[in-house]
Amino acid sequence: MKQNKYDNANFFSAYKKMPRSVKGLEAAGEWHVLRGLMPELRNKTVLDLGCGFGWHCRYAREQQASSVIGVDISENMLQKARENTNDPAISFIKMPIEDIKFTESQFDVVINSLAFHYIKAFKITCQKVYDCLKPGGTFLFSVEHPIFTSRSEQDWYFDEQGNILHWPVDNYQTEGLRKTTFLTENVIKYHRTLSTYINDIIDAGFKIKTVEEPIPSNEMLKSVPEMKDETRRPMFLMISAKKVSTNKGIYWTVPILRAPTISKILFFVTSPIIPNISRLRVLR
Amino acid sequence: MKQNKYDNANFFSAYKKMPRSVKGLEAAGEWHVLRGLMPELRNKTVLDLGCGFGWHCRYAREQQASSVIGVDISENMLQKARENTNDPAISFIKMPIEDIKFTESQFDVVINSLAFHYIKAFKITCQKVYDCLKPGGTFLFSVEHPIFTSRSEQDWYFDEQGNILHWPVDNYQTEGLRKTTFLTENVIKYHRTLSTYINDIIDAGFKIKTVEEPIPSNEMLKSVPEMKDETRRPMFLMISAKKVSTNKGIYWTVPILRAPTISKILFFVTSPIIPNISRLRVLR
Repeated sequence: MKQNKYDNANFFSAYKKMPRSVKGLEAAGEWHVLRGLMPELRNKTVLDLGCGFGWHCRYAREQQASSVIGVDISENMLQKARENTNDPAISFIKMPIEDIKFTESQFDVVINSLAFHYIKAFKITCQKVYDCLKPGGTFLFSVEHPIFTSRSEQDWYFDEQGNILHWPVDNYQTEGLRKTTFLTENVIKYHRTLSTYINDIIDAGFKIKTVEEPIPSNEMLKSVPEMKDETRRPMFLMISAKKVSTNKGIYWTVPILRAPTISKILFFVTSPIIPNISRLRVLR
Repeated sequence: MKQNKYDNANFFSAYKKMPRSVKGLEAAGEWHVLRGLMPELRNKTVLDLGCGFGWHCRYAREQQASSVIGVDISENMLQKARENTNDPAISFIKMPIEDIKFTESQFDVVINSLAFHYIKAFKITCQKVYDCLKPGGTFLFSVEHPIFTSRSEQDWYFDEQGNILHWPVDNYQTEGLRKTTFLTENVIKYHRTLSTYINDIIDAGFKIKTVEEPIPSNEMLKSVPEMKDETRRPMFLMISAKKVSTNKGIYWTVPILRAPTISKILFFVTSPIIPNISRLRVLR
């Protein structure tokens, strides 16, 4: 049974009051970094896994994405997402992330904000994301940092006067279930080491582009008092990865840029003779 | 001035007594994981940055490496390395890691064990390693984990009875110098976040192959009492990266395997006409 806390009335009522639920992306301390990692979205097909209220779906359309699908397990979340969305190019699907089944190479971009630490099947999900991305497509996600999820308490260590002493880490190498709390409720999270996050992505076939451990912007550090300790430990982990070409094999390569005329002539002469086997490629 | 604690008599005397100094690689809790990340070394040219007593240099030659160069800042270290090495295919150079200047594409493999947290110039060193590696070559290194280096104390947090409570993290996002202690002496280490380690490697041009946060083997966890807490926090970080092809540009690619006859004919016909601009490549 996949966890769906957002359809619990008390929990959802508290979640709805969080700054990021009321004010959207600009109220999320990590958004300025996630936004910086977004690939070009113009004319792109986008999948948002764990879309919640649909903030990232609408952002993608603001950036001229051609179509967006948002997936979420929670009816409460999707009801609110539909209320706040008036755009025929955005569609929402009620489904656990782990159960997605899309067409091969359906999307240019798959994003996921702060949901993977709630799901058990990360490795399989990476493979599903890889399959439904086009070659060259981007997989971008954020999770609670492994340093944050290692202990069930998931809280600072305080002195007797209630001052923060430091962030405590324990059981780091023991991956799996953590019974913890979020807002009003007990929730289950899954702790994974940082190396597992990265290696599972690489094993699925992705190339790691960037890893970030964001801190709030300077404005937010100054204006939101609770944020001031966010430089003391990493709260989030973000990974941007690229689906590399699947065209493995031995190729005869002619660098067009270095011999444009000759190779273009050869290309146009041979293309009709050998259809689908000769083409232009950008190698990086 | 680069730090060279190993030529301090007291420090070196204590270092010489560490299990890994006396018994070698098998006494190092992380060696079984580093060994597993080693690429094929047979007939390869290897550079070991921060070679110390030369254990990894000699290991590379046991694996049939064709030649090995070990670099270290410390005369004490290199004297001991030379005493323990009787192999004309291994040479040692006294030099700070940051100052290396090798020929472009000189090495197949560059390794580095537990030295980069002592040096300030990590990003530049990555670029130097990239330059002196052949395309397809491997860069493999271990460092003290950013979780380990974040606080200057670099120690567990204990209760009043002296029992370990947890591993404390603080100042994680503040990179730079840490005045700490190791063995008998004050030493300077440089704390970097995990994202900096990974992004600096990617920015230099490398492709990340594997990231590991090793724990000691089961045998060692059982037989060495001090190791029993090593599953509670990550002590080391290991990264294996590959130098990818530098042939950026737009290419005309003909998959030889799918149309062997036609493309081979084209290849042999055009090769003499367009020398150096058409060639066979393996794409992965």
